[in-house]
This record gives sequence, structure tokens and C-alpha cells, in this order.
Amino acid sequence: MERIPILQMGDVLLVTIQVDMHDQLALQLQDDLAERIRATSARGVLIEISALDIVDSFIGRMIATISAQASIMDARTVVVGMQPAVAITLVELNLTLPGVRTALNVERGMRLIQLEDDTRP
Amino acid sequence: MERIPILQMGDVLLVTIQVDMHDQLALQLQDDLAERIRATSARGVLIEISALDIVDSFIGRMIATISAQASIMDARTVVVGMQPAVAITLVELNLTLPGVRTALNVERGMRLIQLEDDTRP
Repeated sequence: MERIPILQMGDVLLVTIQVDMHDQLALQLQDDLAERIRATSARGVLIEISALDIVDSFIGRMIATISAQASIMDARTVVVGMQPAVAITLVELNLTLPGVRTALNVERGMRLIQLEDDTRP
Repeated sequence: MERIPILQMGDVLLVTIQVDMHDQLALQLQDDLAERIRATSARGVLIEISALDIVDSFIGRMIATISAQASIMDARTVVVGMQPAVAITLVELNLTLPGVRTALNVERGMRLIQLEDDTRP
């Protein structure tokens, strides 16, 4: 199972992170997502991280890379489902995922992407 | 990360299976799902299994149990994203997940649940 599934819901792709990420898996996910954005003309990517007890710099970089790639392909990335303890630690460490938007849960993330999409040219 | 995240989308709960299931994890998922169905008044449960290369009798039983529990709590269960090879093997082995509905992907599964919900009293 060395591939993280990417689910499509309308214009949005959803990825749930629930296994320990390592280099190869992160690269695979980045490649798969870029390919799926192209194939589906997705306008947004939701990264659901409620299963993560820790967001370290490796995960942070992966999210930033996915977000930058998606942005170039005209899709918005929103990180959803962050545990309160993770949010507290990120702020304490002054790591605030620059350039990446967050929302409380999948539904709010979907709404955020749709809202922005409505105001785009 | 010994807990499979349950995502809520409207009236539907979504579970993506992407790690090897074992007894404890399966029991935890069953408990969590029952609790979340009650807490959210969900009308449906989507179990996404595109990451699974094999659906053995253990997974089959887990899906059947979740489906039965959800049904008692007035929620429908749909299995989505099954790989073609898995479908072929299930039919060859004459294991056709009795009592469990399937749909091609998350979107069709959502539609199936909503469609049935519209026709319920």
C-alpha cells in the first residue's frame, strides 16, 4: 500500500495523511497529485491531517511543496483537520506553514475553495 | 497514528482505508464509526478502499460488521474505489460482500446515499 489515495469530490481532490511519511512516499504523493490535478482540472486540494500527532519540518516542507505545485497549476491547497496540540506546537515553534491556508475540517475547506473559485476570473 | 480518521461531509462519513488492518484497529474503527454516526446523525458511511491490493476475509468481515452496525443506526454503508483486480478476485473466490453496496468512486457513493435518503420516510 505504498501510495496515498487521492479522492475526487467535484472540483476538489482530497488526501488523508494517515501513515508515517517518508521521502519516497512524499515524492510519490507530489507526483500523483500533480498528475491528478491535470487529469481532473481540479481547482483545489484538501490535505487532511487529523491523524497526525506531530507536524515536523519534513511534513511542513511536503505541504509547502504540494501547495506551490498546485498553485502553479491553478489549484488552491487547504490543510484541514489539524489537531489542537499540533496548532499550539506550530505556533510555539514559530512554524506557521507560510503560504498554506488552513480550515477546521473538510467541509469548511471545501467551502473555502469554492468561495475563492467563485471570485476568480 | 493508531486510529483511522473519519471525515464528515454533510450527512455522510468518509473513511479511507490505507494501512494494514489488524484486530485492534478494526475494533477501534467500528467503535469510532458508531460513536460518530450518533454524534453527527450521519445517514451514510463511505468506505474507500482504493489503496487495498487485497480484500481478504478479515477485511470482508470488518466491512460487513460496520455495515450491520450502521444499518441498525439507520445509516447506509457503501464501499467505494475498489481496484479492478480486487473485484475480479472477489468474484473468482465467490466472496461478493453480501449485504454491502459498492460504487465506483466517492462521488457516486455520495450520490447513491443521497438518492436513497431522498426516498426514505
